[in-house]
Amino acid sequence: MTVLERYLPEYQARVEAALERWLPPAQTHPARLHEAMRYAVLGGGKRMRPLLVYATGDALRLPRQVLDAPACAVELIHCYSLVHDDLPAMDDDDLRRGRPTCHRAYDEVTAILVGDALQSLAFRVLSHCRDGEAGPVQGRLRMIEVLSLAAGSRGMAGGQSLDYEAVGRQVTVAELEDMHIHKTGALIRASVMLGALADTTANTTCTERLDHYAKCVGLAFQVQDDVLDVIGDEARLGKSQGADARLNKPTYPALLGLDEARDFARQLCQDAVASLEDFGPEADCLRSVAEYIVARDH
Amino acid sequence: MTVLERYLPEYQARVEAALERWLPPAQTHPARLHEAMRYAVLGGGKRMRPLLVYATGDALRLPRQVLDAPACAVELIHCYSLVHDDLPAMDDDDLRRGRPTCHRAYDEVTAILVGDALQSLAFRVLSHCRDGEAGPVQGRLRMIEVLSLAAGSRGMAGGQSLDYEAVGRQVTVAELEDMHIHKTGALIRASVMLGALADTTANTTCTERLDHYAKCVGLAFQVQDDVLDVIGDEARLGKSQGADARLNKPTYPALLGLDEARDFARQLCQDAVASLEDFGPEADCLRSVAEYIVARDH
Repeated sequence: MTVLERYLPEYQARVEAALERWLPPAQTHPARLHEAMRYAVLGGGKRMRPLLVYATGDALRLPRQVLDAPACAVELIHCYSLVHDDLPAMDDDDLRRGRPTCHRAYDEVTAILVGDALQSLAFRVLSHCRDGEAGPVQGRLRMIEVLSLAAGSRGMAGGQSLDYEAVGRQVTVAELEDMHIHKTGALIRASVMLGALADTTANTTCTERLDHYAKCVGLAFQVQDDVLDVIGDEARLGKSQGADARLNKPTYPALLGLDEARDFARQLCQDAVASLEDFGPEADCLRSVAEYIVARDH
Repeated sequence: MTVLERYLPEYQARVEAALERWLPPAQTHPARLHEAMRYAVLGGGKRMRPLLVYATGDALRLPRQVLDAPACAVELIHCYSLVHDDLPAMDDDDLRRGRPTCHRAYDEVTAILVGDALQSLAFRVLSHCRDGEAGPVQGRLRMIEVLSLAAGSRGMAGGQSLDYEAVGRQVTVAELEDMHIHKTGALIRASVMLGALADTTANTTCTERLDHYAKCVGLAFQVQDDVLDVIGDEARLGKSQGADARLNKPTYPALLGLDEARDFARQLCQDAVASLEDFGPEADCLRSVAEYIVARDH
């Protein structure tokens, strides 16, 4: 059993409980929207980004309760992005995590609004400070700044735009990397950064090393995703296998070859682990995440 | 010349300059998205919500520079909501402010992402505190809480959902009011509240009166909007006249009759002005806004 496997159920349970608390009950007016928001958020998912928040907090020896709000907020941003990505005008996906996508289970208008409302909720979660529950107010404001930048036009939303522009066009490895750094890398970096910002005493060197770790892990995750899209098994992934190729989306295996793409992911994860060398066993969960990425088969 | 007419050009110029500063330049990577964001935000608009932020600040004798960030943030949320409202799956509008809507000028994917990125930017603006520029950090965090609630599922996005559910269905006046309180009222209330939150010394009574003012003005604005949709002139409004009726959307004139609807708007504006009776001439701009709403013809 890896360190990750030991901690993952606890982290997942923590963030699920926090999400459950923050999402309005399904019968709250307007009920259709709230039901659909819960459908989009509480329907499984690996909770990779919350995991990174908690594992970063562990590396900095922080109490778990100061990490619940940032863990929740990054997951809400991630969930909103999935709902909008799946829309007919975007990827037009019917399945997500083995269930109908939000616009299939509800309708397109509801799915647009679910995404919009989940983004608002992410910032609501970070702005709500009860005494004792949160880090200092200044840290929360800085978390909001980091998350809003990572989610916005120079982060995740910008990456979506680059992704869309690249469909059906020949792109270079540099362009593909740039797209992923925006599309998925920004939010993964923000997850680690939000964990670090919960620590009011973290020094700059320490934060920079965590940030380097996050950059490597974020890109490795995407490269491996591309690899799995080629070799993966439809049932296991819960989404249509080879979907990227069918949509004529550029991928690392297509540009580098399958073996080279796998090596690239492995190299990135080694770099990630190397950047944690000054940390003790308290960073083992972060190390385990990097190892899991290249070992995973779904 | 009304008080509003005296101040409006200055307020508009202030918020336009702040929006111009906060929006990334059109050539910033990814350029298509940034160009479209600027198209959606800088293409005119009355800037009613920023006006309410500044006028509330005036009523509380606050320096203008502490109001730029909240004025900018509420306008960004408003602009994002217009872009998403106009989408084919929502209102499917071709014109906005006399120009092609964002998804017509660009494309549907870009319009979805423009809305998403503008919402992120609103919270980025509020979270960014430079010394001397902003009110205390605690006030900013509270502004983010108020704005995220007003924009989310129990505010504006919730109102959109109610609006969509009401199309083609017979609704009561109470349901119509409930829909507008969410759809437009929440953000108008938030505009006044954000102005008040820039004042760290405002007392509860004072804040409650401003909030009552905002509730009345928000609803009056919507009732008058419905009235103008019936009597308005297409060229003046810059959008298709009678669009609500064509979409079979419920309106106040349809439910109450045109004269009753006009009386209702007038009564709401009188209530708004009455709630400011403890304020001196520094609240004249807020009073003037209420008077303008029922006097306006576009």
